[in-house]
Amino acid sequence: MTDLPLVRLKPKANARAIRHGFPWVYDNEMVTDRRTKKLAPGTLAVLEDAERRPMGVVTVNPNSKIMCRMLDQQVDAQIDQAWFEARLAKALAMRERLYDQPFYRLVHAEADGLPGVVIDRFGDTCVVQPNAAWADDRIEPLTEALAYVTGVRNILKNASGRARSLEGLDEENAVLLGQAPDAPLPVLMNGATYMADLTGGQKTGLFFDQRPNHGFAAQLSKGARVLDVFSHVGGFSLAALAGGAASAMAVDGSAAALDLAQKGAEAAGVTDRFTTRKGDAFAVLEALAEEGAQFDVVICDPPAFAPNKPALEKGLRAYERVARLAAPLVAEGGYLGLCSCSHAAELSLFRNASARGIGRAGRRGQLIHTGFAGPDHPLMPQLAESGYLKALFFRL
Amino acid sequence: MTDLPLVRLKPKANARAIRHGFPWVYDNEMVTDRRTKKLAPGTLAVLEDAERRPMGVVTVNPNSKIMCRMLDQQVDAQIDQAWFEARLAKALAMRERLYDQPFYRLVHAEADGLPGVVIDRFGDTCVVQPNAAWADDRIEPLTEALAYVTGVRNILKNASGRARSLEGLDEENAVLLGQAPDAPLPVLMNGATYMADLTGGQKTGLFFDQRPNHGFAAQLSKGARVLDVFSHVGGFSLAALAGGAASAMAVDGSAAALDLAQKGAEAAGVTDRFTTRKGDAFAVLEALAEEGAQFDVVICDPPAFAPNKPALEKGLRAYERVARLAAPLVAEGGYLGLCSCSHAAELSLFRNASARGIGRAGRRGQLIHTGFAGPDHPLMPQLAESGYLKALFFRL
Repeated sequence: MTDLPLVRLKPKANARAIRHGFPWVYDNEMVTDRRTKKLAPGTLAVLEDAERRPMGVVTVNPNSKIMCRMLDQQVDAQIDQAWFEARLAKALAMRERLYDQPFYRLVHAEADGLPGVVIDRFGDTCVVQPNAAWADDRIEPLTEALAYVTGVRNILKNASGRARSLEGLDEENAVLLGQAPDAPLPVLMNGATYMADLTGGQKTGLFFDQRPNHGFAAQLSKGARVLDVFSHVGGFSLAALAGGAASAMAVDGSAAALDLAQKGAEAAGVTDRFTTRKGDAFAVLEALAEEGAQFDVVICDPPAFAPNKPALEKGLRAYERVARLAAPLVAEGGYLGLCSCSHAAELSLFRNASARGIGRAGRRGQLIHTGFAGPDHPLMPQLAESGYLKALFFRL
Repeated sequence: MTDLPLVRLKPKANARAIRHGFPWVYDNEMVTDRRTKKLAPGTLAVLEDAERRPMGVVTVNPNSKIMCRMLDQQVDAQIDQAWFEARLAKALAMRERLYDQPFYRLVHAEADGLPGVVIDRFGDTCVVQPNAAWADDRIEPLTEALAYVTGVRNILKNASGRARSLEGLDEENAVLLGQAPDAPLPVLMNGATYMADLTGGQKTGLFFDQRPNHGFAAQLSKGARVLDVFSHVGGFSLAALAGGAASAMAVDGSAAALDLAQKGAEAAGVTDRFTTRKGDAFAVLEALAEEGAQFDVVICDPPAFAPNKPALEKGLRAYERVARLAAPLVAEGGYLGLCSCSHAAELSLFRNASARGIGRAGRRGQLIHTGFAGPDHPLMPQLAESGYLKALFFRL
């Protein structure tokens, strides 16, 4: 029926959870004989339960704590171009239902049935992050399928994902189809224009995950003075200007990011209301307070201060500090948006740290909105605790 | 300085949390001498810490586990019409920023600085629920302030709140200003028209809390066949039709609610795409499955199955059953929205019950969106765990 190697669960493994859709098998649930240990990362295999009943086609990485990832519960599934096309078509249908414009995360790994694979779409161009060896090995049928299903003309490979080294993969970016854009691409979201640098920028060039939170901030921003701290390419500030903000200031440590933000403001024709300020965000927050600056809406979207458990306590203190330094800049009755993209800082911990920071600044807040990543970043319900992005909006 | 009675914290009470904005003092944190025990529910008093330093003006109910609720940390605050005006003006400013039309929850109790008071606005008419004795005793200045700040012409009192009996209050509704409407009022949300029965309906006539979740469902519904189970006055189905649904069916056990839904469909001119089906929701779900009915979007918004901790296990089983019966009605690639308005069923428990029900129906789902009550239902950060409303959207 199949010539794939076999790998087997230990009796103690939770076969039922896997049958019900849990996508991972941990190393301590697997029979790891010498043969299994020798499999190259990304090898396809048939997973059997402890009674040797086949459960599906998995990808194996004997060096990883997550040793198997389920690709298909059909034991005879062929992981070929047609298989990729079916997964991509399903992912595309959901995005096309939700978004008028072709700018979104098209594939969000496990939840879209493609473990370790992230694909972002920027109009005519897709950026693929094949962060798992099984997908990197099959980049050709994946590329063909992606071009066929979406009709995009350019497909780029971004190899900067941290997981790649664990999978034994290199860090070489590549052009898989068409050509790399020679200038930043305009991206339309929430009525704003963002400039995405698909070759030189962070990750795949732009973060789509904050879209609904940008949208909420824009709703708050009509006629408002807006401060966007850790702005990257102007996510919150440009959305706020599109929503009618009186003014917006973007603060970031990266001149390249602020340059893209400025270009986005130019493209949208809002440069008269837009300013940037380069510098360490904490230092700028303190400086603005000394200058007596006041804003109606302040948003802080820092990098992951608590990317993992060991960093949690220090990370929470950093989030508290952000809140404490930002709150004094919010005019009475104004709004403070605080974001975390830390896996380890779960919602209640992040909320408490934020509220503590606001309190230490001598302010009080109502919590008016809690937002997460947008629907183009679906989650497997079994892994939903791992939703990393949280945005809290307080009214002070 | 003030002629209010004094009540005092025990040394073990968390005075710091109260100073930082925690709004409640529990009975076991209070010195409850004979004099305190005799205070009538709703009496205003000055709260002192264990060292007899005044902390603010509170309202006392010696019969309640939450014995004191903070009204104002200004010890000399006068709780009069001007005081109500200030609180209402702050609450109004946030709603006017967020909503184009004057239909919203204007006051959401503690988080809007008015413990136990709920006020919903329906255009020219407000419905007040003074669910605490301190507010019921001051209904006149509250009414005057409300008319002054909002300019509404009609103010109704709804006395059906369950907390009222604990506060020693009666259940008599009243017209506080103007007149009661003699017909259901049209309410505009998400492009849909809802009919609110302010005198005969549930609570204050319409639930505003689901607005953002209605909006998300509407986004999914373009061209779709939509099923709205536990529909009340058509919350999800009428929003879906406004969003371009091909058809929508509302299911509810209340003929009166379905009649209002039908009137809403008439007002919006969408009766050709709208049907209703009266009956027990579980029975109707089973009947639809037997009929082989399929929908692209199914939403279930049941009453609180787990309103409190003792009801939790039974309630979670009921949520699982809703998911199990609804999932088979969702076409492949379609969407299932599951809501809970149960305080006790916290997010992860509700999500697990929902995922289990979907699994038991032999289906799989991605979680694409988690929504809560809208921003006109703010929370105190210290009480944010108590956010009761959750909406989960799965793609099957």
